[in-house]
Amino acid sequence: MTWTAANGTPVADGLPLLSGVEVHRAQRRLAERLAQTPVVRSDDLDRLAGARLWLKAENLQRGGSFKMRGALLAVERLVSSGSRGVVAQSTGNHAIAVAMAAREHGLTAVLVLPRDAAPTKVRRIRAADAEVLLVGMTLAERMAAVGELAAARGLDVIDPYQNPDVVVGQGTATAELLAQAGSAGGSLDAVVIPVGGGSAVAGACLATEGRGIDVIAAEPAAVPALTEALNAGHPVTVATRTTIADGLRPDQIGELPFELARRRVADVVTVDETAIAEAMRLTLTHARLLVEPAAATAVAVALRIAASRQGSDIGVLLSGGNVETGLVTSLLLDHSENSQIPERPKFAEHSGH
Amino acid sequence: MTWTAANGTPVADGLPLLSGVEVHRAQRRLAERLAQTPVVRSDDLDRLAGARLWLKAENLQRGGSFKMRGALLAVERLVSSGSRGVVAQSTGNHAIAVAMAAREHGLTAVLVLPRDAAPTKVRRIRAADAEVLLVGMTLAERMAAVGELAAARGLDVIDPYQNPDVVVGQGTATAELLAQAGSAGGSLDAVVIPVGGGSAVAGACLATEGRGIDVIAAEPAAVPALTEALNAGHPVTVATRTTIADGLRPDQIGELPFELARRRVADVVTVDETAIAEAMRLTLTHARLLVEPAAATAVAVALRIAASRQGSDIGVLLSGGNVETGLVTSLLLDHSENSQIPERPKFAEHSGH
Repeated sequence: MTWTAANGTPVADGLPLLSGVEVHRAQRRLAERLAQTPVVRSDDLDRLAGARLWLKAENLQRGGSFKMRGALLAVERLVSSGSRGVVAQSTGNHAIAVAMAAREHGLTAVLVLPRDAAPTKVRRIRAADAEVLLVGMTLAERMAAVGELAAARGLDVIDPYQNPDVVVGQGTATAELLAQAGSAGGSLDAVVIPVGGGSAVAGACLATEGRGIDVIAAEPAAVPALTEALNAGHPVTVATRTTIADGLRPDQIGELPFELARRRVADVVTVDETAIAEAMRLTLTHARLLVEPAAATAVAVALRIAASRQGSDIGVLLSGGNVETGLVTSLLLDHSENSQIPERPKFAEHSGH
Repeated sequence: MTWTAANGTPVADGLPLLSGVEVHRAQRRLAERLAQTPVVRSDDLDRLAGARLWLKAENLQRGGSFKMRGALLAVERLVSSGSRGVVAQSTGNHAIAVAMAAREHGLTAVLVLPRDAAPTKVRRIRAADAEVLLVGMTLAERMAAVGELAAARGLDVIDPYQNPDVVVGQGTATAELLAQAGSAGGSLDAVVIPVGGGSAVAGACLATEGRGIDVIAAEPAAVPALTEALNAGHPVTVATRTTIADGLRPDQIGELPFELARRRVADVVTVDETAIAEAMRLTLTHARLLVEPAAATAVAVALRIAASRQGSDIGVLLSGGNVETGLVTSLLLDHSENSQIPERPKFAEHSGH
């Protein structure tokens, strides 16, 4: 899994040399293409945390996740170099983003997802007129399929974790979060970033360069890809368990994200499935935002680390909002069954005045 | 139900003379006190509507609704005139907003709600250290209680529909929507505003003054207070039926909102309970925003009127997000039972790779 610097970015040890400068340049480019997503505050969540949470609502981004940022930059570069079409593997959101960006530029797009991809994500890719292939369950199986498709059909690969445009693009979400919190009087002590393949955390490392802000990586305990990579000193394939955080299921972190995270990440915090589900419910009821479990993983970690950072300002990347309705229903039902408070509204039974 | 111009605003026929100038002045004052809520777009909702919907997300406002705007202005005026405490009646959101604004200024606050008020709203008022009284089911009963409390305890009344600060404050939500849509390249043909007691639509009438924008009032068919007032030529008490839109259940529109609406509103559209529930679900899944049924009423009307306004830009006031979790669960369950597509996510059953 080595990355080739097809875009002319200088390479060291086979990896591109990226910095915050590229992120800020990308931020200016994307400002013309994407509406700025809000940073949402919730008094109720803040009370619960004992800290001020600044929620970067990328669930409201086009395509339903922050992945649109990197995909737009990568597709635009390929278009200008005469690409005929693109292929990418993804657990879902990168694929949606690539499909939408490719359609805007009239490029063919083929997307490789795991067999158990979230149906809502598959629907969104097809809605963008792209081709979907469901292949195996592991990252290695999807990567192999991508390699074959690229060779057989002359397609350009947009890797979701290693492509420098993608990493830099994803970093603009954190850069915006810092700027927006700053304008609103917040001085972030930390940003919490969910980790799947690692592009978001890699981008956050670049975006926070030279700032006294801790980058905290959030992982589901079921897929501790960054935790185990840091222990091993290099990316490793981890044995995964079931997680509702479908966006964080790549079983290996990319090399480029790993190198950036190793130098810059202050802490990696893992949370279990119950904490992720509860954070998803709290974000819905307190911040009135529907987020997918990957984003809820970051909220769960933010609530956890707030215990030792009382009164501080904590940024949270709400990475996306592409979630099955059935999962939301289950979470709310489970909570209602475990709750002492009757949740069924009384006013629904009222008839007349 | 006559209004006295205690704040010195000029009065004609017993009603204050208000204009867009007051709204723009209020907008500048509130800009220092409240973060600007975003205007959210959803490609999926736009596709469904065949028009571009600009959703002013006041569900993300402090206190969970746009009512914080008017309450802050009204409380600040009373504080500067030496008030000892305030009393207000409300179906919920105005009460939450008054309670929070009063606490910020160290004022006592007593809030009168109907017996069947949404529990989540009652909880929020108590969380702001205010006193809650649950009185009867009709507006008249609540108004009588407010009068008695004001007299007995020397409290100042903040009427949710007639107070000019409240009407002007609520108008700032529409003023911001116009400005934000404009900056993002939208040219609104219409704004859709939910109608309960009428402060939101009254404010929208002022905010759109002199602009070629249709103000469309959205009512639940179960409580057609503005529709019947326009038919009668004056506010009337309507016979109400059950509605999930608890925020839109005042059974009479205020005189001041009626006078403004009569001159300026282009159309009043009523929608039934099924349409409101479906709009609430669509806003959740497509725009990833949790809104209360009052706000969903406006979305339902926007989807309805879009049929004859294909390709146009339609602003929608998402008035609030204070909703019972149980109601959300019921809506999602009902939809899932009526749906042919299996909604339970398949990926939840996967264990390991």
